[in-house]
Amino acid sequence: MKIKEIYDFLNKLSPFELQESWDNSGLLVGNWNNEIEKIYVSLDLDLELVDNIEENSLIITHHPLIFKPLKNLVPISYSQKIAIKLIQKNISLISMHTNFDKTHLNKYVMKEVLGFEYEENADFILTAKIDMEFNQFVNYIKKSLNIDSLNVVQSHEKITSFSLTTGSGMGLLSKIKTDCFLTGDIKYHDAMEAKAREISLIDVTHYGSEKYFCQAIYNELNEFQKFAIIQNSKNPFKRL
Amino acid sequence: MKIKEIYDFLNKLSPFELQESWDNSGLLVGNWNNEIEKIYVSLDLDLELVDNIEENSLIITHHPLIFKPLKNLVPISYSQKIAIKLIQKNISLISMHTNFDKTHLNKYVMKEVLGFEYEENADFILTAKIDMEFNQFVNYIKKSLNIDSLNVVQSHEKITSFSLTTGSGMGLLSKIKTDCFLTGDIKYHDAMEAKAREISLIDVTHYGSEKYFCQAIYNELNEFQKFAIIQNSKNPFKRL
Amino acid sequence: MKIKEIYDFLNKLSPFELQESWDNSGLLVGNWNNEIEKIYVSLDLDLELVDNIEENSLIITHHPLIFKPLKNLVPISYSQKIAIKLIQKNISLISMHTNFDKTHLNKYVMKEVLGFEYEENADFILTAKIDMEFNQFVNYIKKSLNIDSLNVVQSHEKITSFSLTTGSGMGLLSKIKTDCFLTGDIKYHDAMEAKAREISLIDVTHYGSEKYFCQAIYNELNEFQKFAIIQNSKNPFKRL
Amino acid sequence: MKIKEIYDFLNKLSPFELQESWDNSGLLVGNWNNEIEKIYVSLDLDLELVDNIEENSLIITHHPLIFKPLKNLVPISYSQKIAIKLIQKNISLISMHTNFDKTHLNKYVMKEVLGFEYEENADFILTAKIDMEFNQFVNYIKKSLNIDSLNVVQSHEKITSFSLTTGSGMGLLSKIKTDCFLTGDIKYHDAMEAKAREISLIDVTHYGSEKYFCQAIYNELNEFQKFAIIQNSKNPFKRL
Amino acid sequence: MKIKEIYDFLNKLSPFELQESWDNSGLLVGNWNNEIEKIYVSLDLDLELVDNIEENSLIITHHPLIFKPLKNLVPISYSQKIAIKLIQKNISLISMHTNFDKTHLNKYVMKEVLGFEYEENADFILTAKIDMEFNQFVNYIKKSLNIDSLNVVQSHEKITSFSLTTGSGMGLLSKIKTDCFLTGDIKYHDAMEAKAREISLIDVTHYGSEKYFCQAIYNELNEFQKFAIIQNSKNPFKRL
Amino acid sequence: MKIKEIYDFLNKLSPFELQESWDNSGLLVGNWNNEIEKIYVSLDLDLELVDNIEENSLIITHHPLIFKPLKNLVPISYSQKIAIKLIQKNISLISMHTNFDKTHLNKYVMKEVLGFEYEENADFILTAKIDMEFNQFVNYIKKSLNIDSLNVVQSHEKITSFSLTTGSGMGLLSKIKTDCFLTGDIKYHDAMEAKAREISLIDVTHYGSEKYFCQAIYNELNEFQKFAIIQNSKNPFKRL
Repeated sequence: MKIKEIYDFLNKLSPFELQESWDNSGLLVGNWNNEIEKIYVSLDLDLELVDNIEENSLIITHHPLIFKPLKNLVPISYSQKIAIKLIQKNISLISMHTNFDKTHLNKYVMKEVLGFEYEENADFILTAKIDMEFNQFVNYIKKSLNIDSLNVVQSHEKITSFSLTTGSGMGLLSKIKTDCFLTGDIKYHDAMEAKAREISLIDVTHYGSEKYFCQAIYNELNEFQKFAIIQNSKNPFKRL
Repeated sequence: MKIKEIYDFLNKLSPFELQESWDNSGLLVGNWNNEIEKIYVSLDLDLELVDNIEENSLIITHHPLIFKPLKNLVPISYSQKIAIKLIQKNISLISMHTNFDKTHLNKYVMKEVLGFEYEENADFILTAKIDMEFNQFVNYIKKSLNIDSLNVVQSHEKITSFSLTTGSGMGLLSKIKTDCFLTGDIKYHDAMEAKAREISLIDVTHYGSEKYFCQAIYNELNEFQKFAIIQNSKNPFKRL
Repeated sequence: MKIKEIYDFLNKLSPFELQESWDNSGLLVGNWNNEIEKIYVSLDLDLELVDNIEENSLIITHHPLIFKPLKNLVPISYSQKIAIKLIQKNISLISMHTNFDKTHLNKYVMKEVLGFEYEENADFILTAKIDMEFNQFVNYIKKSLNIDSLNVVQSHEKITSFSLTTGSGMGLLSKIKTDCFLTGDIKYHDAMEAKAREISLIDVTHYGSEKYFCQAIYNELNEFQKFAIIQNSKNPFKRL
Repeated sequence: MKIKEIYDFLNKLSPFELQESWDNSGLLVGNWNNEIEKIYVSLDLDLELVDNIEENSLIITHHPLIFKPLKNLVPISYSQKIAIKLIQKNISLISMHTNFDKTHLNKYVMKEVLGFEYEENADFILTAKIDMEFNQFVNYIKKSLNIDSLNVVQSHEKITSFSLTTGSGMGLLSKIKTDCFLTGDIKYHDAMEAKAREISLIDVTHYGSEKYFCQAIYNELNEFQKFAIIQNSKNPFKRL
Repeated sequence: MKIKEIYDFLNKLSPFELQESWDNSGLLVGNWNNEIEKIYVSLDLDLELVDNIEENSLIITHHPLIFKPLKNLVPISYSQKIAIKLIQKNISLISMHTNFDKTHLNKYVMKEVLGFEYEENADFILTAKIDMEFNQFVNYIKKSLNIDSLNVVQSHEKITSFSLTTGSGMGLLSKIKTDCFLTGDIKYHDAMEAKAREISLIDVTHYGSEKYFCQAIYNELNEFQKFAIIQNSKNPFKRL
Repeated sequence: MKIKEIYDFLNKLSPFELQESWDNSGLLVGNWNNEIEKIYVSLDLDLELVDNIEENSLIITHHPLIFKPLKNLVPISYSQKIAIKLIQKNISLISMHTNFDKTHLNKYVMKEVLGFEYEENADFILTAKIDMEFNQFVNYIKKSLNIDSLNVVQSHEKITSFSLTTGSGMGLLSKIKTDCFLTGDIKYHDAMEAKAREISLIDVTHYGSEKYFCQAIYNELNEFQKFAIIQNSKNPFKRL
């Protein structure tokens, strides 16, 4: 099958024009007319992954390989190293980032992973009602995400509502109207800001909250599913 | 004593004009002519801290209370809430941020906390030679900083050199020439980038690497030391 | 009563979203939940005024206290000095500037002060028909505004139409289609420009044309009027 | 004589490269090789003045005719109307603005008009020592400038030092270190700002403080003086 | 007749508000109330042309005389030299540039000069179907435009469709969907780009493709035609 | 030999830091540690050239392949198509553009190709004295560059001095102080401007004036010359 056919299918599933202006979702490496027989799905690309997948295939990732446009193709940075390898192995790449966040990923994590129905859905923020002790809620989240321990900022004993933004959502803090915000990549000053605003935080980690991309997209691939393989990139972090 | 006297002393110790263009170090709340009798030193301000310290005093912090200039004084954000409380209690505030990073804090952590002599010192990056297994080095760092567990990105078995930037240093990654980089607030994409560049990371956390600000400045206060009290702000994060 | 109740009433009277993009109307000091018992109305704030009004009150002004956002709260500038005093006295501040110009103030001055019906109303410019000698018209204006002498630029013997912009309106000169323009803060090069365009000017002064803010807003306060006191800021200029 | 000769002479007297980046001093209308026999000097150009001066002459003004570059030559604005007339009468124009402020005009007004020796000279600000009642000083200034009445902002009873910037200097307020500032075109918010900073102001008016340009430049014209005529533009303002 | 009448007629024919944001079409020299008796039409102005046309007339050109606004009226550049001459001879100037491209010129050249019906019309690009050898097509174009030799970039043997943008159209290359693009002012890197994209180019030259402006506008002048004279500016290029 | 060795040699010959801020000279494709055995030199890259040169080689060009940084590696534009081919064939690319213009290329064309000694050298402009009829000079240039016919703009009968900028130099027109300017890519409005300024132009074409890059760099390659092959890209233009 041709890349073009798969691209058109994905564009119907989650239109690329929904992406944010700063995003770079779409066909990033390869040619519309390339013939491929295998589709990999992964949160991201890493060098080990690219070494392991087959030549002449297509890979669909969540994060665009290239954010800052490339002034040269010398293998220095992450984007340059991997882009060169992809071309050498004739592997094509389609990324579905903020368009897929909006249409599928946030909802998938809220419902299928955490098991909540959402009440509101504004841009990248889903909110849900709840009534739980904070510690009890953190334990529930750890079990749901299958993570041993998490960074949290506790502002209340009880949680009556929470918001979820998978990936890296602290830029949205001023829009959070609930008791608690679940997102990843929480920095120290963000934590201080949330504490002053009396919002609790649970750092569900970027990887930990978005590793579900593979399953979420795989489920929707329909006639292409039989050519598809889930082969997730690895979490670069270890906890020691 | 007058705020002005202490400001002038601090300006000699670590000139405010050394601060970066985006920084806002200096006198942030209070009046040059205020008479004070007590000096607090803290990494940061938090609401509990401001509640606990005495009226008509001075507090010296590392992080400026105000980064984004204030369009109003309604108690919504961290900066607004705390600024209002400081004025209500007539507490003055001096912050010593990137100027003090350059002149004292990085060196203090490298030498007094981690116990290494640095080889090079470029802007905010100190480098040191070492010859250790990565895991062994992580254990050493945890003990030195008195932290139970840390996020790491491992790119090599052994470490022969490392760089240190206290606080939040990942914007400097492209300047790192050593095997390993110790800094805080490491985000997921930063970790992916470092792994592709074959640099190991140890996330010493923003708070964990800068909580030494209090001791570092206290040690230098000379004749003002007898009026000074170390009363550090709290780490907003808990590990659950 | 709560600040919030008064704010909501004012927002219905003259919606804050009508303000220009560069304006900063709205709640500038204080908290939505503050309880107050007294409302002052004034064109502006000055230090003497703030010294004289009661603690825990609300003041409503025309001009926003803060235009350029504040990087610190050291009492150097007008905005900083007064903002600090307001917080120390727990006085809240709401400003109604370009929204109120559009909905009330220009019309109030045209009708109630100068005694003319306006023909057109475009943004900040009201126009009226008239048939008078220029000198006679200047005398009429001086009497209406109760000002002894005024700066004028005379381009014609007779006036058949005039435009009015209270405050500081010379940035609108290229939109004036009438014989004569009444506004304040007229600078020398503006006057040269108007003369070349054959438009007469009457400098009704910024303070002189906007001191009516107090009465204009007071008249509209309805159920809050009984808590309100007109206490106008002073004209900083004297004519010697 | 050729325009070029006079330009070179003026450039030695007060180098055009000293002008501020936003200024537009220099040859604005005419040709370097034009032959002229008469030189007019004036603070500014106005339509009446251009009607009255001779064809094929040169005029030297303080203010540049063109600040905002011209997109067309249709006679709408001041600059367009006068530029067209100058070309029609083959009159050349040289303006000496911020370069001449720095080298001559401020000093001339301070010494020759007001009769003071200056102590400091920073950019456009001259300062002098004095010991006078404020009212007495205002009277002295009115007599020196031959103006009947002036707008003032009084912050002290006595003046011990003052600063002078001819023309329109209120953008420099934050640099004023003296009790009192003399300049023109003072707007209402500038006056409020000065009052809060406890600086007195005397609005010596733009025209009133710079009408001396003609005499100041005439005195320096040397061998060209015999071809020169002082024919000042008129003050557009009247006081009624 | 008055300039205003002709301007209003032209504005109905090809509304000036259709011009691009960077364009400067409209009345560029002269006065709305000027009385004129003669109208010249020309692609452009040059010094020889201005010397030859009569005083007190109007000229209508395609290209605006002024693109970069003028900071002075010293005869250095093309715009300055010609603008001064026009004022000296009291000649008015109206330019009709991108508005006229959109409403008339492209279509006129496509139909009346090249003899094709266009299929699509997007902004400045007209497209037509064709079936010809490339060399044969080039010969046809040369005859149609009456030009001896042309620069071409050949990417195919045959042409099945082509696009036309009169003047200087290479900035639109990425929008060309046909085999061949006819436009002027083709630079070397544009040619390399087109070759890599497999699009043939025929450089019909800027002057060669727009010299038809005169006839195209003349045909539409209706009641003003009897006062109009076609007097085209000269092509500055010779082929040696 | 390693790319790094050649890069270092070239950097001594014509330091890359001399390039203009908008330029992108340097290593653009490949790796510092690549081992190569063959060096090609060419003005530019085109698809045919890349098809013909050997894998695992290095090519040195004048023009950087990439000017506008690449957001993806899909083969649409010239830069993308060729960059992908280079990676597929493991061909490295170093470009020497404005640095080499300054240090070698302009001088080489002036002296070795045209046979003149230059008098002045300012940035990208070389000037020479001469005394010839314009037509005679054009013939001389055509012979020197081996080009049959050229576009010219003639402003004088005789040439007494000329300036040369290889490539595309019309942005420098306002700096030309000689009778005649030789450069490439001359557009229609540039020609009109030059004519009004009374400067003659000879369009030596971009390719025609820079095809000498190959020989100029080859001559300087010293110990690397024995591995080097001149294989110039083709002129995309034909004259029909």
